[in-house]
Amino acid sequence: MNDFLGADLPIIQSPMAGVHDSTLTIAVSSAGGLGSLPCALQSIDEIRAELNAVTQQSDKPFSANFFCHKPQEIDAEREARWRAELKPYFDELGIDVDNIPTKPKCEPFNHQIADVLEDYRPTVISFHFGLPSADLVARVKSWGSTIIASATTVEEAQWLEANGADGIIAQGLEAGGHRGIFLSEDLTTQVGTFSLLPQIVKAVKLPVIAAGGIADAAGVAAALSLGASAVQVGTAYLLCTETNTSQIHRNALKSEASQHTAITNLFSGRPARSIVNRIMREIGPINPNTSAFPLALTAISAVKKQAESAGIGDFSSLWCGQNATGCKEISAAEMTMALAAKL
Amino acid sequence: MNDFLGADLPIIQSPMAGVHDSTLTIAVSSAGGLGSLPCALQSIDEIRAELNAVTQQSDKPFSANFFCHKPQEIDAEREARWRAELKPYFDELGIDVDNIPTKPKCEPFNHQIADVLEDYRPTVISFHFGLPSADLVARVKSWGSTIIASATTVEEAQWLEANGADGIIAQGLEAGGHRGIFLSEDLTTQVGTFSLLPQIVKAVKLPVIAAGGIADAAGVAAALSLGASAVQVGTAYLLCTETNTSQIHRNALKSEASQHTAITNLFSGRPARSIVNRIMREIGPINPNTSAFPLALTAISAVKKQAESAGIGDFSSLWCGQNATGCKEISAAEMTMALAAKL
Repeated sequence: MNDFLGADLPIIQSPMAGVHDSTLTIAVSSAGGLGSLPCALQSIDEIRAELNAVTQQSDKPFSANFFCHKPQEIDAEREARWRAELKPYFDELGIDVDNIPTKPKCEPFNHQIADVLEDYRPTVISFHFGLPSADLVARVKSWGSTIIASATTVEEAQWLEANGADGIIAQGLEAGGHRGIFLSEDLTTQVGTFSLLPQIVKAVKLPVIAAGGIADAAGVAAALSLGASAVQVGTAYLLCTETNTSQIHRNALKSEASQHTAITNLFSGRPARSIVNRIMREIGPINPNTSAFPLALTAISAVKKQAESAGIGDFSSLWCGQNATGCKEISAAEMTMALAAKL
Repeated sequence: MNDFLGADLPIIQSPMAGVHDSTLTIAVSSAGGLGSLPCALQSIDEIRAELNAVTQQSDKPFSANFFCHKPQEIDAEREARWRAELKPYFDELGIDVDNIPTKPKCEPFNHQIADVLEDYRPTVISFHFGLPSADLVARVKSWGSTIIASATTVEEAQWLEANGADGIIAQGLEAGGHRGIFLSEDLTTQVGTFSLLPQIVKAVKLPVIAAGGIADAAGVAAALSLGASAVQVGTAYLLCTETNTSQIHRNALKSEASQHTAITNLFSGRPARSIVNRIMREIGPINPNTSAFPLALTAISAVKKQAESAGIGDFSSLWCGQNATGCKEISAAEMTMALAAKL
């Protein structure tokens, strides 16, 4: 393990943008796992501040996570279609459409970010939606950082191996949050963890990290027995004391509602797994009229924010995998130890 | 194990209607697994003949499988819509629509079938799409047969437990062939094996059989470590010498095409996992205009049959789970032993 991820335990805490900050990262790394810092929705200054926080409070290995989507120009006609879909909710909640920004804060990994990262050189850098350009991959590797990236199909795993990844996250269909899918837009290509993991293990030479549906020590053990070198766990950490998971999201995770999740594109324009709520039922879960990722974020976020201020989660991205039974209101250290109990 | 399924090994060969007959059943049972006999598409006389074959050639435990769908009256308008969807293919292949029967041979389990079954009393009777009526459940149990049935959600597992099942097949989303789904029509409720299995194990007191994506000994071991009492394996047996898998189907299973399956309703009216082929791409994989299960079978079967006679699999139900890497052209006994290698 040490050669690969640097951490004592083969357990990565999934980076979950919007749900936690460096507090969780530090707690997991301190417990011997690999804590991850979600940087995809942050400004350069915020990324620097978080990297400062992690490195000042811990000398343990950690991972920093970034998105590698293609930047999108605003398509006025498409954004108008998206806002037309949302108009009933704007009206219901009294939202002034003219005050909604058109562009969200979500830059793909770039040299400006790399300039900051270079000062901190995280043990691991993880990418979602593919990899950055070859020069960025080379730059990151020149510092000695290990690159891991998500594959949702065998083909994506082979592509990542050919393009510079040092490890592959086999992201099974069960996983909560954004699908890492990047070589196709066809959701029928997405494979369950039990099938995806051993096929990727067979198809690549790199170490493989299992993700999706791993909720407890038995799940960790089963993933390793299917050939994984490590696991990445997100949902189980969502109720941990060191997260910023909203009360609305916490309540949903603790309720029967968490038994029914679906892959939806409503919250960002890209497919992601959330607990099914009102807006997913009414105009989703997949809607052809969203703006492209990440542009769809702004309009839906205005609806979400207004509703949440009244305690309503009908429009919130309630990220959750298909197995929420591992969620517990305990510390991240306790969760990490519990996940490692059968190792 | 002996108390539950009767077989030496905790390995059930999935009943795969249309792909094999009693030859495979006998081979698997003789090797120490639990062979299954697919009876859902057979007439009473055919069922009797197959039960004769199994019991005359083997004294090992075996399972007989039946469907429990609601019988459907023909809806002329809906059937017309379905045939309109298929019209381009009727034309392309020169099929005379007037010669296509309107009703397929696919009766749900009933007392007439039970009359035959009573003479043979299979160790296990397995049901798909729920359970038959309470009196039929009681009748089957009165002979000492063990009832197992497929659940695709935790809710379905609890329903089956409450309604007389002795064991639950946790059918993960990866599984090939027909989804057992019966309490909902919403495919977003369908859960991957890695998530479904441990949740059903927690939710019911009955033994749980894992299905979906289990392709080799490591998969069997992982399923048992997630709490399964046994596994049910289908896809891996499809190339075995004792099957009737068509050459078209075999070729697809051995090709790259098998890496991309999807859940489709085109071949029967109910969702089932098949290798993606031309008709799934062109009018599917899910089409709102199919006739209800099993009525959709007849029209598509006419297209399939005509195309297959020319060696074309563009319209064939190419049943396959999301992990075809276990398929090998070996005997069913060798496959059963290989699956059991880590027990």
